[in-house]
Amino acid sequence: MTFQYDNVYINATSTVAGPYEAKGPLGKLFDKTYEDLYNGEKSWETAEVQLLKESIDILLKKANKKKEEIDLAIAGDLLNQITSSSYAIEELNLPFLGIYSACATSTEGMIIGASLIDSGKIKNCITATSSHNMSSEKQFRNPTEYGAPKPKTATFTATGGACLYLSNEKSKVRVESSTIGRPIDMAQQDPYNMGAVMAPGAADTIYRHLTDLKRQVTDYDLIVTGDLGVYGKEILIDYMKTEYGIDISNNYDDCGTMLYDLEEQKEVMAGGSGPVCSALVNCSHIIKLMEQKKLKRVLWVATGALFSPTFVYQKENILSIAHAVSLEVVE
Amino acid sequence: MTFQYDNVYINATSTVAGPYEAKGPLGKLFDKTYEDLYNGEKSWETAEVQLLKESIDILLKKANKKKEEIDLAIAGDLLNQITSSSYAIEELNLPFLGIYSACATSTEGMIIGASLIDSGKIKNCITATSSHNMSSEKQFRNPTEYGAPKPKTATFTATGGACLYLSNEKSKVRVESSTIGRPIDMAQQDPYNMGAVMAPGAADTIYRHLTDLKRQVTDYDLIVTGDLGVYGKEILIDYMKTEYGIDISNNYDDCGTMLYDLEEQKEVMAGGSGPVCSALVNCSHIIKLMEQKKLKRVLWVATGALFSPTFVYQKENILSIAHAVSLEVVE
Repeated sequence: MTFQYDNVYINATSTVAGPYEAKGPLGKLFDKTYEDLYNGEKSWETAEVQLLKESIDILLKKANKKKEEIDLAIAGDLLNQITSSSYAIEELNLPFLGIYSACATSTEGMIIGASLIDSGKIKNCITATSSHNMSSEKQFRNPTEYGAPKPKTATFTATGGACLYLSNEKSKVRVESSTIGRPIDMAQQDPYNMGAVMAPGAADTIYRHLTDLKRQVTDYDLIVTGDLGVYGKEILIDYMKTEYGIDISNNYDDCGTMLYDLEEQKEVMAGGSGPVCSALVNCSHIIKLMEQKKLKRVLWVATGALFSPTFVYQKENILSIAHAVSLEVVE
Repeated sequence: MTFQYDNVYINATSTVAGPYEAKGPLGKLFDKTYEDLYNGEKSWETAEVQLLKESIDILLKKANKKKEEIDLAIAGDLLNQITSSSYAIEELNLPFLGIYSACATSTEGMIIGASLIDSGKIKNCITATSSHNMSSEKQFRNPTEYGAPKPKTATFTATGGACLYLSNEKSKVRVESSTIGRPIDMAQQDPYNMGAVMAPGAADTIYRHLTDLKRQVTDYDLIVTGDLGVYGKEILIDYMKTEYGIDISNNYDDCGTMLYDLEEQKEVMAGGSGPVCSALVNCSHIIKLMEQKKLKRVLWVATGALFSPTFVYQKENILSIAHAVSLEVVE
């Protein structure tokens, strides 16, 4: 399902990141970074809440808005019952739509927000997401203390909070269109190879986006997926070519491979993941390149793996989904 | 945040329920019921997936639509990573927005769907939710085998799947307006008293709905909350009176107290809960009363508790949220 928008703008973005992200190539671009994964909190979970809360506070300052002027917050995260989002938004006392698409949550929020702004139902909204390396490890691979070795296809959940302020007030970059993804089952069962799980979901959404709008890959300066990592990125390029006859290799990158220095930061294995991964890269780096007109049109395809530890234990396949938003420089 | 809609209709609803719900006063109104909580599946989780899947299949038949004619599915549930919804929708191969507002998920889905239909972005959508008594018990109170006694304020997670088909095609009942709720913190910490947690969330949303639209309680034939149960219902009536000076007692009921025979079915304690609770009651009973013009205008206020076991263990407060949709008979 593809929508086009006439009057939806990105007026501000914000990013707060953890120590591993701070050491990566985009470290200096984040609004704030922490050297410690606890960032002054007592638990990984409240640390994640505070990262998200702080990124929203910074967003409001950058957008020069009081929280009373915000119509709606749309947010989601990986924690069970999306607690990071709920607890962060509660402190702001805003109308709240909780969402979940795993690591594709960021663009799902933008699609809902942009659709409501475009139709005049709201004037503005905050879309937000977070993840935290240790709250995710604890939840998905508890007890983490066992420290079992991981295969090289494993990705590393990014730590941080990232937000966008979307509104009908003209700015340098607009949300031009979007495509809602479908859950895709490619009979994958390895929770340590999310790139392989998510690549077909990304391919399906990119293909339908291009088809729905009768566009070519070259209509975009950059197609950037969420968090496929080194191996998933290769799989996507191959899969697009063999399945759809589309070569994306010349203007394609993956946020999971951009967030860290994969040569130096060996601990991140195949790259970054988590809903905040693609949000950190886009909100700190790519949207800034667009504001500087170094990129004119970008397709941000956040990618998520739909599963739970319970379903993995029960030998169910791991599904994937990808939601795409097309961003365009306002001339 | 309150929206009004011009052309959003409820064309069909569907309900599939479990054995406890089948024995309740609405038992004969459900489209299908199971005598067994496993409904032929091997696990509680896949049982829940199948209940939801089956309710969608029934919905499509009742709406006389093929799945290819559906623009979008919006769904969420209580299972970690909303797996019931993702796995059920995957089988339908539909564009999917995953949402989470705990037991307020049903109306959140309707608000997003109605807003997209009203603005012409989509022609139709399915909104769906599910819960399962044992998958919830296992997840939130594992290991269930210990069978610790519960206080009388505890509610009983309903088992079933329930869906609505919303479209721009005129029918007997329309979605007239909606109000998105805010996360509310009233310093509640007892996970066995969800009624007390959720009543202030319901009150906030009802008050803002009435205020935003300059309406009175008497503009509604019925205000029906999600799943406050016996005690939460009393708290809401009191709280509305003392906090806002509004008496709702004459045309107010709670789905948690309507789904079961509270005199006979002692095992449900203070009443039903779970996202499917208010969806089962509205989709099987209340919307039919509206189609028969026995009720002209109803405010469905699904109520959710925003928390996770991890946050409860860490002594964090339990938040609540309520999303309201106003349903109106089409004259």
